Amino acid sequence: MSAENDQNGSTVRVVLDAMGGDYGPVETVKGAMRALESGNIEVILVGEKDSVEAELANYDLAGKPVRIVPSEGKIGDDEHPVRAMRSKPDSSILIANKLLKSGEADVLVSMGSTGASMAGAVLALGLLEGLDRPCIGGPFLGLAPRTVLVDMGSNIDCRPGMLLNFAALGMVFSRKFLEIPDPKVGLLSVGAETAKGNKQVQESHQLFADSHLNFVGNVEGMDFFTQKADVIVCDGFVGNILMKYTEGLGSALFPFLERELSSRMAPEDVRSFAASLWQMMNLPRTMGGPLFGVNGAVVLGHGSCKGGEVAGAINTATRYVNLGMVESMREELSKMNRQETPSNPS
Amino acid sequence: MSAENDQNGSTVRVVLDAMGGDYGPVETVKGAMRALESGNIEVILVGEKDSVEAELANYDLAGKPVRIVPSEGKIGDDEHPVRAMRSKPDSSILIANKLLKSGEADVLVSMGSTGASMAGAVLALGLLEGLDRPCIGGPFLGLAPRTVLVDMGSNIDCRPGMLLNFAALGMVFSRKFLEIPDPKVGLLSVGAETAKGNKQVQESHQLFADSHLNFVGNVEGMDFFTQKADVIVCDGFVGNILMKYTEGLGSALFPFLERELSSRMAPEDVRSFAASLWQMMNLPRTMGGPLFGVNGAVVLGHGSCKGGEVAGAINTATRYVNLGMVESMREELSKMNRQETPSNPS
Repeated sequence: MSAENDQNGSTVRVVLDAMGGDYGPVETVKGAMRALESGNIEVILVGEKDSVEAELANYDLAGKPVRIVPSEGKIGDDEHPVRAMRSKPDSSILIANKLLKSGEADVLVSMGSTGASMAGAVLALGLLEGLDRPCIGGPFLGLAPRTVLVDMGSNIDCRPGMLLNFAALGMVFSRKFLEIPDPKVGLLSVGAETAKGNKQVQESHQLFADSHLNFVGNVEGMDFFTQKADVIVCDGFVGNILMKYTEGLGSALFPFLERELSSRMAPEDVRSFAASLWQMMNLPRTMGGPLFGVNGAVVLGHGSCKGGEVAGAINTATRYVNLGMVESMREELSKMNRQETPSNPS
Repeated sequence: MSAENDQNGSTVRVVLDAMGGDYGPVETVKGAMRALESGNIEVILVGEKDSVEAELANYDLAGKPVRIVPSEGKIGDDEHPVRAMRSKPDSSILIANKLLKSGEADVLVSMGSTGASMAGAVLALGLLEGLDRPCIGGPFLGLAPRTVLVDMGSNIDCRPGMLLNFAALGMVFSRKFLEIPDPKVGLLSVGAETAKGNKQVQESHQLFADSHLNFVGNVEGMDFFTQKADVIVCDGFVGNILMKYTEGLGSALFPFLERELSSRMAPEDVRSFAASLWQMMNLPRTMGGPLFGVNGAVVLGHGSCKGGEVAGAINTATRYVNLGMVESMREELSKMNRQETPSNPS
């Protein structure tokens, strides 16, 4: 981390949706306490007062900058985000967003419903200028931890201009968060040649080539592992399928590993190997995924995250704030929109 | 294999493009000789006479039903298939297709350029009635060897009707080749709910629901491993990305495995484990992929196949013929087209 990028000096105020995810508030509180041990942070836990307090009672809070802001109810994965937001205005994710919006917190972390977290953030914070939609991006594979994928699943049908915006956001993440000086951007397709690809890729290709991005052309499925591109761009349909496929594959490898390795390795070695392989396949679970494009710092985590993974997402969030990621993304979009519409003075 | 399906009695005549792939004719001839050891087959090797003869000289041919049909030239991966077909009418893949068309062979096996193999087969054999395009399908993961993926990459932008036809072909493969009595068919999407998916999936959903297929609705990336569907349908854009991603992942796991396992296992055990893991990720390399939808039996293999994998593709080809796969696919399409266009007497 270079000194000029990283404003490590000031305390980062993290607001955590303590009710979110499959294991809130037990694991969210555990994750917050773990993150407090190492990071220069304050934590605001948003949730049902009694149950969060009961969890906190398990820890030694002496000198720990943690407090509760009460909320009522929670928006589940199975609810329609916008309808649920209307009927549950005091739910944990909405209160947490309000604290971010009002400036009481620097960054929001949520393991709750992705749809509700995104919709809540867009409604409370608004989008960066030039964007119609936010997107989720970041590295998604431990085997390729410096390759950024955008969009991970938030936008199913994407116009070429949307893909270009997402590419710019992913590029900023790569440059600042992963410290890759001039990130190469590739369009995910079925062949390296310009003509190869579906209609969407073909329509996007020229737009990418004309942009100021360091566009290396089309990349293919294997190029997540070849360093041909630092940022790989696809719509959320393909991104979601790749993410879930990889997760499923990681789990499906377990019985195979047990069968293949149990005769050659001690059981505890098999388990520890399986755990590290699983982590290789599930990077966003251990570090969360930033929500790109909203007017504020938001990091989302998988609903099934346990304490250590919640702490990982909080660490990502802290670094995201310290690096001034949102401001850099705002500047990048503004630069791109100036360049790409020279005749338009706005 | 059930007796009524399998006509094991008669010898299958396999025509092999001996020049195809990265290692023809060395590895193609090796594969043919290996397949001849176990299968009730005859092999026609199509290729440059001198070089194929030179390869055959390495083997004991006594009593082996193998012969050469000479060809001139080869169509490479980097050539435009249709243009190359015009300029190289005596190339190995075109001569091989002629032998299949004329009835001198029962099935064609090619490790050569996928584009040229497909275009050659469509031109020589024509398509099954009701189809506009062929497609490549089959199981693609050793971890999920009974889950069929169509389309693996041959058709990039697909209309809903194409996807439905491909689903029917994949279903026949699942039922006869994999012996799954009533294969469940799923549309690959980003959520199980009917409304979830891109435009293409949403437009296809009702068509699938109205068909006689055992349609289980949308499936997601992890469902390659959940047995929710036996046949997973997507366009060739997504299919190609998934295939190449999986291949790349299999290779990228190597250094990780070496690092993780070398302290706990003997080097030869690490290598043998890595090899079986790689095979888990690369099923089509070991068994080839049938070309669905042409009026004849064609099995394609990866260009990088070595002898054992060529033999695997020949075994797949033999079984494909013995099971009468092409005839069953023709019947299925005809049944579907009758049901789906009741007002159309054709």
